[in-house]
Amino acid sequence: MILGIVGVGLLGGSLSLAARRRQVVTRIVATDRLPGVLTRAMERGLIDEALPSPEAVAAHADLTVFCTPVDQIAGQALAAAPHAKGVLTDVGSTKAAITQALAQVPHFVPGHPLAGSEKQGPEYAREDLFAGRLVLLTPGAGTAPEAIEQVRQFWQALETRVESIDAVEHDRALALTSHLPHLLASALVGILPAPWRLLTASGFRDATRLASGSVELWRAIFLQNRAALIEALLQLREQLRLYEDALSTADLEQLTTLLEQAKHSRDALA
Amino acid sequence: MILGIVGVGLLGGSLSLAARRRQVVTRIVATDRLPGVLTRAMERGLIDEALPSPEAVAAHADLTVFCTPVDQIAGQALAAAPHAKGVLTDVGSTKAAITQALAQVPHFVPGHPLAGSEKQGPEYAREDLFAGRLVLLTPGAGTAPEAIEQVRQFWQALETRVESIDAVEHDRALALTSHLPHLLASALVGILPAPWRLLTASGFRDATRLASGSVELWRAIFLQNRAALIEALLQLREQLRLYEDALSTADLEQLTTLLEQAKHSRDALA
Repeated sequence: MILGIVGVGLLGGSLSLAARRRQVVTRIVATDRLPGVLTRAMERGLIDEALPSPEAVAAHADLTVFCTPVDQIAGQALAAAPHAKGVLTDVGSTKAAITQALAQVPHFVPGHPLAGSEKQGPEYAREDLFAGRLVLLTPGAGTAPEAIEQVRQFWQALETRVESIDAVEHDRALALTSHLPHLLASALVGILPAPWRLLTASGFRDATRLASGSVELWRAIFLQNRAALIEALLQLREQLRLYEDALSTADLEQLTTLLEQAKHSRDALA
Repeated sequence: MILGIVGVGLLGGSLSLAARRRQVVTRIVATDRLPGVLTRAMERGLIDEALPSPEAVAAHADLTVFCTPVDQIAGQALAAAPHAKGVLTDVGSTKAAITQALAQVPHFVPGHPLAGSEKQGPEYAREDLFAGRLVLLTPGAGTAPEAIEQVRQFWQALETRVESIDAVEHDRALALTSHLPHLLASALVGILPAPWRLLTASGFRDATRLASGSVELWRAIFLQNRAALIEALLQLREQLRLYEDALSTADLEQLTTLLEQAKHSRDALA
């Protein structure tokens, strides 16, 4: 099988390494808007051939995976679809807008592997980035069942678990489990005065690690999922008000309840 | 030198391991309100002798370190001070209330090593927990210079960096760098619906790891530093409002500015 990758960054590069390692592909063709990235990807042996455009990749590949920022995926996939030799899918962190935009393209299967890192670029690609992770597919009513099956089998071959979920439900959940944590990390480190940087320990660093992620990628995710993200933010604000009230009145019981419930929930994540 | 430890949990146990490893003590005596903890600490070789009370520890030790919850330290240290053979210090995460309460005890040196873990108990003690970390001392006007010097030398022997800082300034800074991150982690995981636990990835887990910490320890820290913590929470709320406004109006420029400033600040932490 010829695998096509559009956007050879951390995710695209890791996909390439994982697919080669599991020997599920015979050849990998790719494109990237930055020629330098393609050169480095070739040098690292991540790809076999660099092509000039997403259309060219889709025309060559049995399966083309769009690993570009979420605000570029729909346009690129729509442009490539008429030229596609095989099935198209993506790894975008938002799904409703992309799924809707591609509703008329039966061979496009919207997808999202729950894996990532605050690091960017093919240098950080890891063959185990996806292993053991959950991949969510959000096919629409018009998505071809055989296309869904092909994408499912591809991800399963990479040792992931694959599940289908409604695209809007996906975006509501990910707003809370991924996009809000990123926003919070950024907001928290954003109010840290420079002289207090020395007074941070591992807890602060862990809690704000996400804020090191790519501004370009994340502003696109935030904007594409802004309705659900605002909803999550309002929910958090209500929760913060409970803490503030408990602190203001030195309410030991309420504070205990809040912290115990949070610890229980966090411990359940293992 | 005989080292005394009051409270043989993660911090007390790690202190013991570190002090033995660096051979800065000849003998370690300790107490804990839970007899089971003392038994386990003896079995693990963390301590040489279990004593019945903080007073007994202070009466035997050249340096007694209080490693108990922050709402217990001042009372225990005040009770032990008249019996003390040597110098007293502590590892509490809040300093203003403790420093003030012990203002009339020249041989008590308030301290705080910036190290910890969400794990609790002597089982998780690590000899390298403090290595390379910053220890903040917040002596008052009445603290004896030779006591400060003795505590400084002890911590330096454990390969930490030691600095002095005003107790109120300490609490304002730590409200932002430690206590608020913990509160945020708890608030975030507190609004996660159980069915969405499966939809979390490493980012969510890192961002909420702190919420697994001891409820007893952290509610005491929150209450003891509640004025500064509320102040930090209000600052964060303003920052969150900037994000909310940028999202509501789909203001790409403002969102970019916020995320870039946060990334710059986070990347500066290394």
